[in-house]
Amino acid sequence: MNANPQFLAATAQVDDAAVKPLPNSRKIYVEGSRADIRVPMREITQGDTRTATGVEKNPPIYVYDTSGPYTDPDVKIDIRSGLAPLRAAWIEERGDTEVLAGPTSEYGQGRLADPKLAELRFNLKRAPRRAKAGANVTQMHYARRGIVTPEMEYIAIRENQRRKEYLEGLRAGGPTGEKLARLIGRQHPGQSFGANIPDEITPEFVRDEVARGRAIIPANINHPETEPMIIGRNFLVKINANIGNSAVSSGIGEEVEKMTWSIRWGGDTVMDLSTGKHIHETREWIVRNSPVPIGTVPIYQALEKVDGKAEELTWEIFRDTLIEQAEQGVDYFTIHAGIRLAHIPLTANRMTGIVSRGGSIMAKWCLAHHKESFLYTHFEDICEIMKAYDVAFSLGDGLRPGSIWDANDEAQLAELRTLGELTQVAWKHDVQVMIEGPGHVPMQLIKENMDIQLKDCHEAPFYTLGPLTTDIAPGYDHITSAIGAAQIGWYGTAMLCYVTPKEHLGLPNKKDVKDGIMAYKIAAHAADLAKGHPGAQIRDNALSKARFEFRWEDQFNLGFDPDTAKDFHDETLPKDSMKTA
Amino acid sequence: MNANPQFLAATAQVDDAAVKPLPNSRKIYVEGSRADIRVPMREITQGDTRTATGVEKNPPIYVYDTSGPYTDPDVKIDIRSGLAPLRAAWIEERGDTEVLAGPTSEYGQGRLADPKLAELRFNLKRAPRRAKAGANVTQMHYARRGIVTPEMEYIAIRENQRRKEYLEGLRAGGPTGEKLARLIGRQHPGQSFGANIPDEITPEFVRDEVARGRAIIPANINHPETEPMIIGRNFLVKINANIGNSAVSSGIGEEVEKMTWSIRWGGDTVMDLSTGKHIHETREWIVRNSPVPIGTVPIYQALEKVDGKAEELTWEIFRDTLIEQAEQGVDYFTIHAGIRLAHIPLTANRMTGIVSRGGSIMAKWCLAHHKESFLYTHFEDICEIMKAYDVAFSLGDGLRPGSIWDANDEAQLAELRTLGELTQVAWKHDVQVMIEGPGHVPMQLIKENMDIQLKDCHEAPFYTLGPLTTDIAPGYDHITSAIGAAQIGWYGTAMLCYVTPKEHLGLPNKKDVKDGIMAYKIAAHAADLAKGHPGAQIRDNALSKARFEFRWEDQFNLGFDPDTAKDFHDETLPKDSMKTA
Repeated sequence: MNANPQFLAATAQVDDAAVKPLPNSRKIYVEGSRADIRVPMREITQGDTRTATGVEKNPPIYVYDTSGPYTDPDVKIDIRSGLAPLRAAWIEERGDTEVLAGPTSEYGQGRLADPKLAELRFNLKRAPRRAKAGANVTQMHYARRGIVTPEMEYIAIRENQRRKEYLEGLRAGGPTGEKLARLIGRQHPGQSFGANIPDEITPEFVRDEVARGRAIIPANINHPETEPMIIGRNFLVKINANIGNSAVSSGIGEEVEKMTWSIRWGGDTVMDLSTGKHIHETREWIVRNSPVPIGTVPIYQALEKVDGKAEELTWEIFRDTLIEQAEQGVDYFTIHAGIRLAHIPLTANRMTGIVSRGGSIMAKWCLAHHKESFLYTHFEDICEIMKAYDVAFSLGDGLRPGSIWDANDEAQLAELRTLGELTQVAWKHDVQVMIEGPGHVPMQLIKENMDIQLKDCHEAPFYTLGPLTTDIAPGYDHITSAIGAAQIGWYGTAMLCYVTPKEHLGLPNKKDVKDGIMAYKIAAHAADLAKGHPGAQIRDNALSKARFEFRWEDQFNLGFDPDTAKDFHDETLPKDSMKTA
Repeated sequence: MNANPQFLAATAQVDDAAVKPLPNSRKIYVEGSRADIRVPMREITQGDTRTATGVEKNPPIYVYDTSGPYTDPDVKIDIRSGLAPLRAAWIEERGDTEVLAGPTSEYGQGRLADPKLAELRFNLKRAPRRAKAGANVTQMHYARRGIVTPEMEYIAIRENQRRKEYLEGLRAGGPTGEKLARLIGRQHPGQSFGANIPDEITPEFVRDEVARGRAIIPANINHPETEPMIIGRNFLVKINANIGNSAVSSGIGEEVEKMTWSIRWGGDTVMDLSTGKHIHETREWIVRNSPVPIGTVPIYQALEKVDGKAEELTWEIFRDTLIEQAEQGVDYFTIHAGIRLAHIPLTANRMTGIVSRGGSIMAKWCLAHHKESFLYTHFEDICEIMKAYDVAFSLGDGLRPGSIWDANDEAQLAELRTLGELTQVAWKHDVQVMIEGPGHVPMQLIKENMDIQLKDCHEAPFYTLGPLTTDIAPGYDHITSAIGAAQIGWYGTAMLCYVTPKEHLGLPNKKDVKDGIMAYKIAAHAADLAKGHPGAQIRDNALSKARFEFRWEDQFNLGFDPDTAKDFHDETLPKDSMKTA
C-alpha cells in the first residue's frame, strides 16, 4: 500500500487490482420479472475431463458475486462518478419519498459549504431523498403490507444462484448429464438447529421473512447503488468487513481501495469505522462507490464533534449525525441503545471491563449524567429517522465480553434482553433490526449464547464478531475467531463480522483485509454446508472433482482465492501425484 | 529458506532461529521423585500493573514446553552430536533390553557399510537396543503389570503444569494474592462429552489410562532423547507437524530445521514423511536431534525400495523396513492394515477415490494380488516387532475421505471397524495404538465420526488430520481444517495432525510449517478450554489481564507467537486506546 499520498478528488482512480477479472470467470446477469432487475453472478468456466474414451465437458459453476460492477469489463469504472444508481427507479416509483433541496443536517450543510473541502469532496450531483411526511419507506413496512419489492425479487434470484435451472440443465444432457447432476448436486443432510431454508427461495418467502423480522434488507433510499442482499438465518450466511482510516494510518483513497478489495473477495457488507478529520468525506466516497450495504457507528463521529469528550454528547448532536449519515446513504447503524444505567455495575468484576468502543462511550456518558442514555430514552425518535430513509438497526453489544473470562456473563445477557425489548419497539415502527453479538466465547458456550439470542431477541438476525474461542493468539485472531464464527453461523447467526490478524494490535491494511475475508468466507461457507443450505455443496463437489482429476487450473479457479492457490502451487512442484488430504 | 546447499555431516549446524530464547521466557525444570526426572516448562515473566496506589506484581505464567533443550541457554547444542539420551538410564535399568552389535535390518546394515554415505551420515556412537527374547518393553505392558515408569511420572508432572502449586503459591500471598488466584484461576465449566480429566494428573492415572489403551506414550527404546509425552483424550490435546523432503524440494539440513522450528512453536510430535534418496539418513538426523516423538509411514520407504512399484512390495521388505526404522528410534508407525480387499470396491462411487498415499499403495497391492494385504495378514508379526522396541501403532486411515462428498461413507466406516478389531489384537500383545482419522468432513458430521471411532475402536486415542470443513479454499486449508480440528478435539480427539496452507498444492516450507502449527495450537487449546481441561484458562486469563491493562509486551509474550504480535503492533500505531474485540 502506498504511504498516504494526498488525496484529490479530481485525480482519484480506481485500484487496478479491484477491476482485474478473476481467472476463467465472467459476470452474468439473471433477469427478473422486469428488465431492470438484473442479478449478477460469477460464472466460472472449467476445463474438460480426459477419460479413456475421450473428453467429457465440465459445466461452468455459478457463484454468489459481491464484487459489483468492478468485475464487469463492460462497465466503465470512474470512482469520481460513483456507481450507477440501479435502484433509483424502484425507489422513485414507490412514490413515498421526496427529493430534498440538499442535506438537512446541520453538519452535512456545513461540510458542503466549506470551500476548504472542495478538493476532497465527492461531486455528488444527486440530492438526498427522504420519506414524505407520514410515510414509512422500510422494506419491512412494504413486506408487512404484503408488497414484494424489486429488492425482494432480486434477492430471491440471488440467493438461489440458478441452482434449479443449473441442475435441470445438466439432467437434460442425457446420461452423462444425469450422472454429472447426481455427482455435483449431491449433498449431506444438514443439521439446521431450527433454521428453515426452503429448497427454492421465492420473492414471497423473502417478503415473509422480512415481515417477520427474521431477516433484513439493508437498503437506504439514499444508497441506490446497492445490489440488494439479505441477512437472515434462512438465507446464506453473510460476512462483513470492517474498514476505516485513522489520522495516522490512511486516507480516503486507501479506504475506497479497502472497500473494493473487500467486495472483490466476498465481503457482503462493509462497515466504515473511520475516525479523524475527514470522516464525512471519506464516507461519501465509500458509499458512492459501494455496491454492498455500508454500516457505520454514528456515535464515533458524534464523539469527534465534541472533541472526544463523551460526557458532552447530546441527543441533538447525535440526531444531527444520524440524519447526516442517513442522507449520505448509510444502510445500517450500530446503535448501543441497550446499555442501561443498571447494567454498568455488572461489569465491575469483569476481567476486561467494557471493550466495545461505543459501549464505553455510552457507559461514560451514563455515569457522568447518572441517567439512562439518550440512545435509550430517544429510541423511538431514532426509529422515526430510520424509517424515513430505511436505515436498519444493528443494535450494538456495548457490553460484549472482551475475554474468555467474561463470556456469557450477566452484563452481556442483561444487555441482550434489553436489545430484545428494543427490537420489539423498532418492529412496532416497521424498522429493520439485527443484533450484534460477541466477542470472546469459548466453544462450549457458543450454542448457549446463540439460543439465548434467538429467544430473547425474537429471532431478529444475529450479527456476531467472531467469536474468538481463545485469547492467547494475538496475530492470529482471524483463526481463533473463524473457529467460533463457523460454529455460531451453523447454530443460526445470520452475518459474521470478520476479525483480521491485526485484531487487538493495529489497524488492518489491505493484506489483513483479505486474510480476514478469506477466514470468514470459509467460516460462513462451512456453516452453510453444516446447516444443509440447499446447493451449498455444489462448489465443493466441483472443486473436489477437479482435484481428483488433476485439473489444477480448475482447482485454483473454483476456490475462494485463485491467485494464492496458484502461487503456492507454483512455489514447489509436488513430486508425487497423490495428494495427502 | 536457503536453496538446498549440499549437506555435510561435518559442518552441520543448528538453525539459529531455533535456539533463540523466547522473549521474557526461561526454561525451568520441575524435579520428580528422582533426580533424573526433570520436566521442562517455560516460565513467562510479566511486568507490573500500575494502579492508583502504586504497583502490583504479576506472577509468572508456566506453559507446556515442547521445544526441548534448544531453548535452554545452559545446554550446548551441536546437531552433529544429537541430544542427550535423557531416558537411557530408565531403559537400561528395567533390565529387559539388550544392546545389539549394530543394526539388524539388512537395509540398515547396507547403509552403514556404504562409504558413499559417509559425508552425510550422522555419527551415532550408540548401538541399538531390542527387547530380550520373550520380553515386552512397551509402556502399555509395564502399565498393565502395575508399574509406574519414570516416563509416566514425567508425564504427570508435565500435564499438570505446576497448576496446583502455582495457585496455592498465589493464595499464600495475602489478600492481593487471593484476588489474583481467583482472577487467574477462574474457568468456565467445560462440556467434555464423556472425557474424564481429573483435577490433578497422578502417575497412577497416567498408568491406568495407558493400561486401558485410552492413551499412549510414544517412546521407542532407541529414541532415549525424547521428553516423554502422552496422547489421550483425558490429557491436553496434542498436535503433530508433518515434515519431509522430496527429491525436488529440500535436503537433510532443511528437514532438521523444520523439526526444530516445529517444536519451537509447539509441535508435540513430528512425522517425517521424507521421500527420495536419503530417507534413511535424513531420519537419523531428525531422530537424534528430536526431543519429541517421531512418527513415520514405513510403507513410503518400502515403496522406494521397490522403485515405486506397489505390486512388488513384500512382507519381507516391509518387515526389514520396520526393523530398520525401529532401530533408529521411530516412536510410532502409520500402518494401513485396515484396508481389506472387500473395502476397496466401496470406494468405486466416491468423488475422490482413495486419497491417502499409503491407502492407495495398499489398495493397488491388494488388487494386483487379489488377496488381503501383508499388513493385515502379518498383523501379529508386526505386533511382535512393535513390542520389541516399543513402537506405537498409528493405524492408518487409508480410506479416509478426500472430499466433503465422501465424508463418513461406508468405505471409511468399514475400515474404521477393522481398525477397531486390529486395536484389540494389538492390545492382546500390549502394543500401544492410536487411530488415524479424516480428512474432509463437514461440521454436522464431525461428532458422528468421533462417536463411531470411540465406540468401534474401544476408546483408543483418535488422531485426525483436520478435518477440513470445506473443499473450496485451497491456499487456506490450515483454516478450513482448524475449524474442524477444534471441534473434533473438543469431542474427544487426542491429537490433531496439522494441515498447512500448502495442503493440496505443494510441500510446506518453514513459514508454512509455522502457520500450520499456529492454527493447530489454537485449535487444540480451544478444545482444551471447551472440554474444561483444568487450568487451561490460566493463560487466557493472564493475557486478557495484560491486554486490559495495556501491558503490551506481556500481551505479546503470553501469546503463541510473540514475534508476530509485536511486529503487527509496531506496523501501525493504533490511535485509540480502546480495542475492538
